[in-house]
Amino acid sequence: MKAAFVNRLGGVEEIRYGDLPEPVPGPTDCLVEVAAVSLNPVDTFVRSGRFSTAVPLPFILGRDLVGTVVSAPPGTSLARGQTVWCDSLGYEGRQGSYAELAVVPADRLYPAPSGIEAHSTDAHRLVALAHPATTAWLGWFEHGRLVPGDTVFVGGGAGNVGNAAIRLAAAAGARIVASSHSRDFDTVRAAGAEVVLDYRDPDLPAACARAAPEGFDLVWDTSGHHDGEFLAEATAPGARVLITASAAPNTEVPLGRLYTKDVSLIGFVMSRTTADQLARAAKGLTPFLRPRAAGPLTRTDKTSATGTVSSAGALTTAIAEVLPLSEAARAHRMMETGEIRGRVVLTP
Amino acid sequence: MKAAFVNRLGGVEEIRYGDLPEPVPGPTDCLVEVAAVSLNPVDTFVRSGRFSTAVPLPFILGRDLVGTVVSAPPGTSLARGQTVWCDSLGYEGRQGSYAELAVVPADRLYPAPSGIEAHSTDAHRLVALAHPATTAWLGWFEHGRLVPGDTVFVGGGAGNVGNAAIRLAAAAGARIVASSHSRDFDTVRAAGAEVVLDYRDPDLPAACARAAPEGFDLVWDTSGHHDGEFLAEATAPGARVLITASAAPNTEVPLGRLYTKDVSLIGFVMSRTTADQLARAAKGLTPFLRPRAAGPLTRTDKTSATGTVSSAGALTTAIAEVLPLSEAARAHRMMETGEIRGRVVLTP
Repeated sequence: MKAAFVNRLGGVEEIRYGDLPEPVPGPTDCLVEVAAVSLNPVDTFVRSGRFSTAVPLPFILGRDLVGTVVSAPPGTSLARGQTVWCDSLGYEGRQGSYAELAVVPADRLYPAPSGIEAHSTDAHRLVALAHPATTAWLGWFEHGRLVPGDTVFVGGGAGNVGNAAIRLAAAAGARIVASSHSRDFDTVRAAGAEVVLDYRDPDLPAACARAAPEGFDLVWDTSGHHDGEFLAEATAPGARVLITASAAPNTEVPLGRLYTKDVSLIGFVMSRTTADQLARAAKGLTPFLRPRAAGPLTRTDKTSATGTVSSAGALTTAIAEVLPLSEAARAHRMMETGEIRGRVVLTP
Repeated sequence: MKAAFVNRLGGVEEIRYGDLPEPVPGPTDCLVEVAAVSLNPVDTFVRSGRFSTAVPLPFILGRDLVGTVVSAPPGTSLARGQTVWCDSLGYEGRQGSYAELAVVPADRLYPAPSGIEAHSTDAHRLVALAHPATTAWLGWFEHGRLVPGDTVFVGGGAGNVGNAAIRLAAAAGARIVASSHSRDFDTVRAAGAEVVLDYRDPDLPAACARAAPEGFDLVWDTSGHHDGEFLAEATAPGARVLITASAAPNTEVPLGRLYTKDVSLIGFVMSRTTADQLARAAKGLTPFLRPRAAGPLTRTDKTSATGTVSSAGALTTAIAEVLPLSEAARAHRMMETGEIRGRVVLTP
């Protein structure tokens, strides 16, 4: 089968595209015919060795996939021909998704929402959303304990995780204040933010205080720009601050002002999320991953600034390019040089 | 009745000792004859106004008490003459405990372990332990999710909270590495720490790495000395760091290294703890608050460096002085000048 792989960890130049033996599933694995994979920033960290994890060599890159079940072990509800997705290949000893065929542990494979064909633009959207949507779900519902009526702040509201986080928080009954680049205000509002602020605006803390005079119950800067003074001022008593990225090696945190407000800083990363947690998120996300026309909420559709037509409630994503899997090395280079906005989908 | 109170918030000089009208319980309150109160550091913060909370004037100081039920509302399990304790008076509009009689909401009053008479040294120990033992319970079991087999680090192991934290963690099946002043090593070991390190030792991080090569599941520096580098190095994946004190206005925290290990910083403070949480802690603490001879564990008794004979498992405390309530102002002054080690008990 064709695959994009490396014989040793390192730079983009290590990526090979060629033939590898077809993988053989174990007794609790599915064999999946891969239809599309999404280029995930973590793919570059695994490839380079920056994220240290066990990998077999030659190592097929890639974390996420959408595909079709070729074979499933007895006792699972998955059936041959079914469209499925996965967001946890390519680390902890598992081979990755950049291949024509992938072996996936059955408990890491989720049914696609009904109506999504494996070879379709809906499938591209699904695979592009897999990782950021799961991160957003885990942040609010596994770690952040979001409840209806919470007032939340989302930094990086136009990013992949930030945008999904806004839609899920809105669907869960939260009131959302977000920040983004001013060019993305419409996208962020369309996702469900009531107030959108320019992340560079020096008045942002004061604007947050006006928008949420009792403070935020949850704060999540998905861009990784953390400001201790802002956290101390902007949080409500009992608030949770989610940390899933960090742009600076160190942040000055006024721990005394935070603990006296019962504030917690909760850090988590997808790569340490258990199979059970990922499966719970996948189940919960199903209504939000449906084909775009069938979002679970009924707000008026809006056209976002990035040109994606979105049904409020259904998660959206901006797909920058769809490339053949043979272009994996070029795609990694594009990601590392920062020349793409939005997600890149690769098709075997 | 006699009481120690202030007519306005301020310095020690505001404390009066004299007669106030006997308080009248509401329909869900108990009236309690106070036998002993413990001088709690937070009493000085409420008195000075540093901890901002609603107080009626004249305001009777004091958070903790041991006493005897004079009257209880129908439907409670509390009975006249029963020895009881409370750790949440004197804030959020409630009058305090420094008086001959106190009105206590029935859901904030807990039965003393059987065998403790209200006017006894066991009662003095109970009231001195009320606040630190509850803090320790909440830290491990309400916020920290400690489970048997966890390896934990306790900073300030000879302090009131630290010592209780070590005993409770040991009883819950954790392995404990602690730090303290070298003069207190025996006390800290007697409480249940396997390894005790000098908090000033520059080799402390390396010694921790040797003592807990897989990292700590929980880190709690009860003295409030937090070091971001230590937290990043010494924590195991998924670790919880409890923050209940802070000696510095800001701490440099390497958020990137912490979130990629799924580490959370969990801040909490007794004054925001709900009545339900306090009641759960009181119930759980009952076996540990029994008279000293009847601790729930069976390890050999040891004589600690502070001269307190302890039955391992039962919580211990060092009582520096027992003074009449009329000496409340002097006691506050002693606490603020730092001239006492251990707890001061006041008796009306």
